[in-house]
Amino acid sequence: MHQIVFFAFGISLGVILHRYADQDDMFLERTAPSELCGCHGNCPLGDSVADGNSPTPSSPDPDVGREGSSVWCTGNNHTDRMCKFRNLCYAPHFQGGFIFFHGTDTVKQGFPKNRFDPALLDMTSVSDHNTQYFDFADLNSDDVYKFNVSFYHGNSFLFNRFNPENLMHVLHDDLLPLFVTLAQVTLSDSLPFDTNTRLLLMDGWPAGENFELYQVLSDKPVLLKQDLDKYPKGSLVCFRNAFVGLSKSSVWYQYGFSEPQGPLKDTTATATQIRHFTNFIRRRFDLSIGDEESGQYVVLLSRKINRVILNESEVMFALIQEFGLRVVAIGYETHSLKEQIQIISKASILIGVHGSLLTLSMFLPRWAIVIEIFPYAVNPENYTPYKTLTNLPGMNLVYRAWRNLKEENSVTHPDYPPHLGGIHHLPGSQQNEIMASGEVPLHLCCKDPEWLFRIYQDTFVDIPSFISTVEGALSNRNTLRSDQGRDSSHNDPLCPTKVGNLTCQIVNLDNLGNEMKTTNQKFSFNDEEPRSTNRNVGLKLSFEEPWNLPYLEARHIRYEVWIQESGEENYSAWLLPTTEYIFTENIKDNMQYYVWVRCVIDEDVQGPFTVATT
Amino acid sequence: MHQIVFFAFGISLGVILHRYADQDDMFLERTAPSELCGCHGNCPLGDSVADGNSPTPSSPDPDVGREGSSVWCTGNNHTDRMCKFRNLCYAPHFQGGFIFFHGTDTVKQGFPKNRFDPALLDMTSVSDHNTQYFDFADLNSDDVYKFNVSFYHGNSFLFNRFNPENLMHVLHDDLLPLFVTLAQVTLSDSLPFDTNTRLLLMDGWPAGENFELYQVLSDKPVLLKQDLDKYPKGSLVCFRNAFVGLSKSSVWYQYGFSEPQGPLKDTTATATQIRHFTNFIRRRFDLSIGDEESGQYVVLLSRKINRVILNESEVMFALIQEFGLRVVAIGYETHSLKEQIQIISKASILIGVHGSLLTLSMFLPRWAIVIEIFPYAVNPENYTPYKTLTNLPGMNLVYRAWRNLKEENSVTHPDYPPHLGGIHHLPGSQQNEIMASGEVPLHLCCKDPEWLFRIYQDTFVDIPSFISTVEGALSNRNTLRSDQGRDSSHNDPLCPTKVGNLTCQIVNLDNLGNEMKTTNQKFSFNDEEPRSTNRNVGLKLSFEEPWNLPYLEARHIRYEVWIQESGEENYSAWLLPTTEYIFTENIKDNMQYYVWVRCVIDEDVQGPFTVATT
Repeated sequence: MHQIVFFAFGISLGVILHRYADQDDMFLERTAPSELCGCHGNCPLGDSVADGNSPTPSSPDPDVGREGSSVWCTGNNHTDRMCKFRNLCYAPHFQGGFIFFHGTDTVKQGFPKNRFDPALLDMTSVSDHNTQYFDFADLNSDDVYKFNVSFYHGNSFLFNRFNPENLMHVLHDDLLPLFVTLAQVTLSDSLPFDTNTRLLLMDGWPAGENFELYQVLSDKPVLLKQDLDKYPKGSLVCFRNAFVGLSKSSVWYQYGFSEPQGPLKDTTATATQIRHFTNFIRRRFDLSIGDEESGQYVVLLSRKINRVILNESEVMFALIQEFGLRVVAIGYETHSLKEQIQIISKASILIGVHGSLLTLSMFLPRWAIVIEIFPYAVNPENYTPYKTLTNLPGMNLVYRAWRNLKEENSVTHPDYPPHLGGIHHLPGSQQNEIMASGEVPLHLCCKDPEWLFRIYQDTFVDIPSFISTVEGALSNRNTLRSDQGRDSSHNDPLCPTKVGNLTCQIVNLDNLGNEMKTTNQKFSFNDEEPRSTNRNVGLKLSFEEPWNLPYLEARHIRYEVWIQESGEENYSAWLLPTTEYIFTENIKDNMQYYVWVRCVIDEDVQGPFTVATT
Repeated sequence: MHQIVFFAFGISLGVILHRYADQDDMFLERTAPSELCGCHGNCPLGDSVADGNSPTPSSPDPDVGREGSSVWCTGNNHTDRMCKFRNLCYAPHFQGGFIFFHGTDTVKQGFPKNRFDPALLDMTSVSDHNTQYFDFADLNSDDVYKFNVSFYHGNSFLFNRFNPENLMHVLHDDLLPLFVTLAQVTLSDSLPFDTNTRLLLMDGWPAGENFELYQVLSDKPVLLKQDLDKYPKGSLVCFRNAFVGLSKSSVWYQYGFSEPQGPLKDTTATATQIRHFTNFIRRRFDLSIGDEESGQYVVLLSRKINRVILNESEVMFALIQEFGLRVVAIGYETHSLKEQIQIISKASILIGVHGSLLTLSMFLPRWAIVIEIFPYAVNPENYTPYKTLTNLPGMNLVYRAWRNLKEENSVTHPDYPPHLGGIHHLPGSQQNEIMASGEVPLHLCCKDPEWLFRIYQDTFVDIPSFISTVEGALSNRNTLRSDQGRDSSHNDPLCPTKVGNLTCQIVNLDNLGNEMKTTNQKFSFNDEEPRSTNRNVGLKLSFEEPWNLPYLEARHIRYEVWIQESGEENYSAWLLPTTEYIFTENIKDNMQYYVWVRCVIDEDVQGPFTVATT
């Protein structure tokens, strides 16, 4: 009945188990996708899709049966891979997945040998989350004729939002990576990327309240998976040019799936990327911020429902009194996201309890201050998404955490539902343990009850201690700002070019070691003395300084010279302050020499080598 | 006067030396670039460039001083790196190189830490040739205002032709890689790539007689380095979006710079790529070839000047007489390249002496035959660019080498110039050695005198032996063609998708090993017997076949099942022929099991795993 192929190795299986175990601890509380449109089985087909909601007529649909699908990928593994597909299709039924049609014109370039090891690529910027893998089904291209095909012409970008209900996730996981990726893979003369790229949110979540932010990145209507799933059984929705795979280069934080949350090691996120992004968002929102520093006011992120600052007006009054600054309280209940961005874009201080709205500190002007408030028993060092953001080199923001150290200033909510920090569902002993603990221990994502219990506390902010934190930040800001000239955020040194016109030749020297201008070459060749002597020849080197050197304002200029005898492996290396020099040590007059020269400025900024030979 | 930093290690220096030694043996005989236009110091500036010869008005020039340059790269080292630049500038004077302006908006993504190690990237598809490295000079973006800036808007692709005078090099090194790269980095709805991409040939060679082939790949006028060098001192020519770095994925041959020439190891060139390319070229040349096999004739590549077939008409007559086929003699002297491509596109046999025109065999229809003629003392196994091309999987061409083994049928030309095989410039002893040798020994590129002497011989083709070679090829062709159904050129198997609805559960078994439908779970739990027994429980597995399975025409379908006890590292693996089964061996009723299932078709084509747990 069955063949037995028993083998026993424990190699990668632990990894697989681990990955699947993650599912038990899912970060996302997934709500059922709401139906955006009631049309089942009788949705509009063909042209309405082909035109992609644009009034201009599109070119005729490609013949996928003849062409097949194609794919071009870059990257070495599923976590850094990005692929461009031609004629990628989506089957709303048949288990709702993508289809790659193999035909005679199929091209697969940069494609891995095993796309199931463990996946072709991630559909989110959150690395290697096994619920977010992209895959497709293989079919022969002839089989396309068995389906009713609708085409999205032009360029599309397909990805999964990781958690569209949370602004930190929206900006950090989705929008910033999307911005960076589109700049990398699409082209535009006037904008950072081609805003005619259609965005498809394939995660299955409903549009959600942050949907308008996604729309900012495209001039075409953003589509949801549900929009494709409206098509009746037997339909295919195909994309002429589809990109999948978000760049992870702007990501700075990991959420604690396999180790406690914290800054992403080896992040390549830069202030430049983030400022580009925030400028782009403001431009697309038609927010003119004028002079970056025109607003001298404090913004208080005011939460009304939970994690409340119980003495909010006292805090506001103290800020006004101490610093003479206007204080503006904003929040979801009173301001649209666009309004919040506009207000924060001119603020000099942003204050809020730990929460996703603090991601908006990326919109602050340079030299603004961020004060993050942590409830009792929560250690600010263990929850640093906003600290990491504001401290990225070049952001030029001043970050301070303020932590409530007084238990009596905290109001707990053990009766809340579990996802809002309630603990009444837990055994009594565990409840008591949590209540007695003075600090939430390190934990993994995403439903640690002690963490939720503590972060959802309300807090009376201790005014003297809080004001002192703000004072410290202000004074630090002023110091940093006056050091602005020495800002080393721009850690990308300008290198000198090659040296010009490098020549090297063996010259005869007089007894003082100076070059003898009239060389008697014949005499030298007939010389009876051993040739290994270096008594009266030298190696004369001369070259021109790098052409861009006058532009670089280098403080210290040296030339590194390597000299090697023909046939030898060893060489001598020298540092010269000049562009002309005669080397005399161990130089032989019948020897060929190879010489390399490069310019080194400011001690360690090297140019490329130029090579010459005698 | 100078600091001494003597150090003696022989590590990478050997490599550096080797690379530079290559220059002595340069493959290219470089002719001085001809001046295409006499305008020095008073060339048209600004709009004429900005419009890129197109009548539509372009957008305003970007402010490079404000924006700076930016770059996005993919790849891991200089031989596989491809970069997209924004605001890359070229300085016709200042040593004529590229400039990258560092500004506040500068983005550098995927950029190596040391771009001089040894270079950022290759400007040709010939790997790591140290005369073909791309580099730029660093300047601060403010410095752009010191230049007169002209802008090329839109998208540009910048590369070096490797040897534009030789058709093998033109097609293999330049056009095919260009075609593949443009398909990878640009987008078009209707064509394989965006033909509005401007091509810039930065090698410095004159246009040359193959220039029209480059123009085929772009709707914009192809530009030479010389066209940029016309601009006066103090000018800059900037590119809004510039790509550099040719894909090497279509390259199949290495020319013998570091080892004797031969097929490129690990080539990823495919027949699909090449057929795409040749179809594209024909379409752009407006060559309709109709039915691929409509022409039943032989094409003889006829050389008139050197490497001559001395009895050409005898060969033609024999072909007509033996095979009843028309014979068409073509060559540079009598046919344009376009005409040659058109004629070859319908030929059933292509015959020619070893030479670059044989690259045109990529235009042959499937099941055509290529006969390559080698002069006396040249071993066909050592010179295989055309054999390698025609034997690429899926090209479906039949290749035969015919070698003149009779010295008396050969006419040598010791009196020719050295680059055409003359040897009179060599010492007499070396001349005699070469004349006496029966086979050219293996050698490196590019000026081996014995190789040149032998390849430039003229040959009387021995008719019986030649006809027998053609007969062998024809008979082989007929066999291969009748096996066409089993063509395995398409080595990209279609994988089954995941199995559907995987469930696994512990079930009670009766004494016959069948599932007991009415399980008394309580009894089982209260059972006093040790739990390790497997007597009366089983692990019941059931799932649905992959949804694409009915489409795949799989000859052999099995399901691979892995079963692991919770907490164990080992697991058992099984192959099932069915989608439902009850495992009984070592199954314990109080144990949790993890189960993985994947479909395997045709013995070794695996789908992805689905996981479930009891």
